Amino acid sequence: MQRHALSVTRQENYPEWYQGVLKVADLSEHSPVRGCMVIKPWGYAIWENIQRVLDKKFKETGHQNAYFPLFIPLSFMEKEAQHVEGFAKECAVVTHHRLEKGEGGNLVPAGELEEPLIVRPTSEMIIGHSFSKWVEAYRDLPILINQWANIVRWEMRTLMFLRTTEFLWQEGHTAHASREEAEVEAKRMHRIYSDFAHEYLAMPVILGEKTPQERFPGAVNTYTIEAMMQDRKALQAGTSHFLGQNFAKSCEIKFSNQDCEQEFAWTTSWGMTTRMIGGLVMTHSDDDGLVLPPRIASAHLVIIPILNSEEAKALVLPFCEKLTAALKKIHYHGQPLEVIFDTRDMRAGEKSWHWIKKGIPLRVEVGAREVEAGTLSLARRDKSHRDTQSFSPHELEQKICSILDDIQSALLRKAKEFRNQHTVKIDNKKDFYDFFTPKNGENPEIHGGFAFSHWCEDSAVEEQIKNDLNVTIRCIPLDSPLEEGLCVITGKPSKRRVIYAKAY
Amino acid sequence: MQRHALSVTRQENYPEWYQGVLKVADLSEHSPVRGCMVIKPWGYAIWENIQRVLDKKFKETGHQNAYFPLFIPLSFMEKEAQHVEGFAKECAVVTHHRLEKGEGGNLVPAGELEEPLIVRPTSEMIIGHSFSKWVEAYRDLPILINQWANIVRWEMRTLMFLRTTEFLWQEGHTAHASREEAEVEAKRMHRIYSDFAHEYLAMPVILGEKTPQERFPGAVNTYTIEAMMQDRKALQAGTSHFLGQNFAKSCEIKFSNQDCEQEFAWTTSWGMTTRMIGGLVMTHSDDDGLVLPPRIASAHLVIIPILNSEEAKALVLPFCEKLTAALKKIHYHGQPLEVIFDTRDMRAGEKSWHWIKKGIPLRVEVGAREVEAGTLSLARRDKSHRDTQSFSPHELEQKICSILDDIQSALLRKAKEFRNQHTVKIDNKKDFYDFFTPKNGENPEIHGGFAFSHWCEDSAVEEQIKNDLNVTIRCIPLDSPLEEGLCVITGKPSKRRVIYAKAY
Repeated sequence: MQRHALSVTRQENYPEWYQGVLKVADLSEHSPVRGCMVIKPWGYAIWENIQRVLDKKFKETGHQNAYFPLFIPLSFMEKEAQHVEGFAKECAVVTHHRLEKGEGGNLVPAGELEEPLIVRPTSEMIIGHSFSKWVEAYRDLPILINQWANIVRWEMRTLMFLRTTEFLWQEGHTAHASREEAEVEAKRMHRIYSDFAHEYLAMPVILGEKTPQERFPGAVNTYTIEAMMQDRKALQAGTSHFLGQNFAKSCEIKFSNQDCEQEFAWTTSWGMTTRMIGGLVMTHSDDDGLVLPPRIASAHLVIIPILNSEEAKALVLPFCEKLTAALKKIHYHGQPLEVIFDTRDMRAGEKSWHWIKKGIPLRVEVGAREVEAGTLSLARRDKSHRDTQSFSPHELEQKICSILDDIQSALLRKAKEFRNQHTVKIDNKKDFYDFFTPKNGENPEIHGGFAFSHWCEDSAVEEQIKNDLNVTIRCIPLDSPLEEGLCVITGKPSKRRVIYAKAY
Repeated sequence: MQRHALSVTRQENYPEWYQGVLKVADLSEHSPVRGCMVIKPWGYAIWENIQRVLDKKFKETGHQNAYFPLFIPLSFMEKEAQHVEGFAKECAVVTHHRLEKGEGGNLVPAGELEEPLIVRPTSEMIIGHSFSKWVEAYRDLPILINQWANIVRWEMRTLMFLRTTEFLWQEGHTAHASREEAEVEAKRMHRIYSDFAHEYLAMPVILGEKTPQERFPGAVNTYTIEAMMQDRKALQAGTSHFLGQNFAKSCEIKFSNQDCEQEFAWTTSWGMTTRMIGGLVMTHSDDDGLVLPPRIASAHLVIIPILNSEEAKALVLPFCEKLTAALKKIHYHGQPLEVIFDTRDMRAGEKSWHWIKKGIPLRVEVGAREVEAGTLSLARRDKSHRDTQSFSPHELEQKICSILDDIQSALLRKAKEFRNQHTVKIDNKKDFYDFFTPKNGENPEIHGGFAFSHWCEDSAVEEQIKNDLNVTIRCIPLDSPLEEGLCVITGKPSKRRVIYAKAY
């Protein structure tokens, strides 16, 4: 019987396994505030890497960072009807600006505000207000802004990283002089998210458009990237919205064009959030804990000295110190290698499991025998923990970057294979319902996958499958070819297939 | 008569001048949310540089970043009496979690929370709660955490950057096994702030301790750095608190020591905020607008082509492109030079003033004559705008880093001279009151300075001078020697001098 570091495996109980990985990897913890989480250092380091990479990509494409208020006056939210409709049911409302002693002696809210403030669930309305002041003529366009910020949406059912009341994100907001330019921008950022997911998170994603039903409230078009988790559910991993002139009209973002006529600008917005960390966990982790793709990992390598005697210490410690110093000088894709030299007073085997659970890509063990032979023992997180290779320090220094790249591409390949294995073309309703219904005796938490099926473009279909199966159309894939067919639910004519799935 | 880019000079109206600099430099703007501001890209770039430098210093000293909830339950705030007392009068209170249609058809807050949530005015209580779970034994200590976050304190009189309802900051929070270690930590971070202010912001600061009256609510000791602005008022520029066991007791941060006895931990906290950007403006800017120290500047150099004919364009543009590319390859203190090639369709003179107002350290102008002579014309922001020097591109590439360093040290020197000029030893009450009272005919906004005078350690003195003069004891300087003297207010014996000033 195979033993695992986690007490609950994916097959046994997928939701518990997920919580287990977050815990053993020390990524996060629940907070005393309903639906809010604490992102611990090992988890936050992943977010810092995400920030660094995305921020660079945004700046290379001409965007600048800025910062706008956390609070949005209620009257601003009401300016765009669909928008407020989309967020009214789940927002934190600030109504008072101080505390005072109440009748029972305890503190109660006081100083009621004339107008309640909403803690931003997204910033279109407050940023749009600034844009309206920044734009006078076509020469002032485009405006290309990004904000790194915290966001609050009062979710009723929360899940760490994947759906929390407060989360961290970046939100891009841009304004353009023409429809075409704004559409190009929305598509460009969509592509940047997709490239980022593939190259850094080793997360294969499908690029597509949302159906009208699933669009961002107020958007003309929403582009999405959708990933498959190991329970075969979909995760919306990033969205880019073409907002047409809707928000420009409600925020009065007007400019005089080359013919000196007043026009409304065309705007976009796009965001990626800390939910990606949850997606990362659900894409790559296994029953031994977290598995981190090297290009986004909190750290790349740990050095574990085996110190079973004073003599061993005298040999091993200087050897490891030298190795640590040498490895730290190496750059991996432009960033210095993050190397941890684990000198805690603890058995080496225990340390090794500690780092397996935390998902560090490479572990090096060094004992007195290794030092005498001038070697070290290397283990990869993507292979069995017994599968070690012997290197000289020099060899490791030479090869470490290509080994990390090899892990990175192996993780992407594996995730792609998993997704392909669970993506099926389904052409009749019975098969469709069967696909999304757990079989008797099957783990109810892991079933289904992506159904690539026809859709007649009627939103009633979406209502029906949502009610019957909790399935939604994740996207109309950009590369889905035009193909005559019949809607898998209604039998009406359809022009192309879409991706149906259960989703987080 | 000398002409200035700003319509109002410091001498004419200091507060208006400050707002004018923010405006012409395009650093920030007011928002429709009371007391909240928008930090525009040129201002936010300064904050990004502050973040980059401080973050590196924190990590080099063993701190890790993490993220904790924006909201703090009211009951948590109440756990530390002085703490809640300090913040109750100025906090944003969330009382509802959705909006619904009211009787008049407009949206009103709904879904009242059982317990109100406070938008964090600081995070001791919520981070302390996590620490209490992270610590069991002395081996788990120290915990060295930093958080980059937004903060809300409901200020009644606000001033962009210097005092806003929402601001951005970092807050360090650490827990230690001994009093000594926590005190060393608080002092270490105090020193890091001071070094940062001197080296990067070219802002001379005085290191000192706060009086008991002026301490952070709940702290045992507060270390501060105090700078002098150009109206001779003090700016508290960063604080580091030794919290003793106060917060450990209210948050139950306990550990078993080496003798297996339960002890409360010793904690610290320390923060620096976006107010530093306001401090930067008030330290260096002049009547032509912003002046940015090179090591923290949003950009280092702008290249302005002079294009008065098609022939000039053909000569000048390729010359400038080549120069831009060459300069961008140069590193200044480890960071690539930020070079702006300003190709806007606008007169060169207008562009030049645009960049003077924005405070960019260096301006290069290139016309056809310069290209033919193989030279360029360089102007420094810290000198007169007419004062230009001629360089070959190669010479500029060779010398640019030392020119920038020269500007940096010139700004620090100038600010130090200004402070020294307005710091006086005062030994009697009449002189003290005179010093802090604007003379007839004098600009009431610019007067006084730092009074280095004796204090009998009675907090009644602080009350009196606050009421009479709006003066506070800014700090007890760390390097203030023991010196027998008489309190400048009461005439009672005093052991050393302290810094008195009006303050932001």
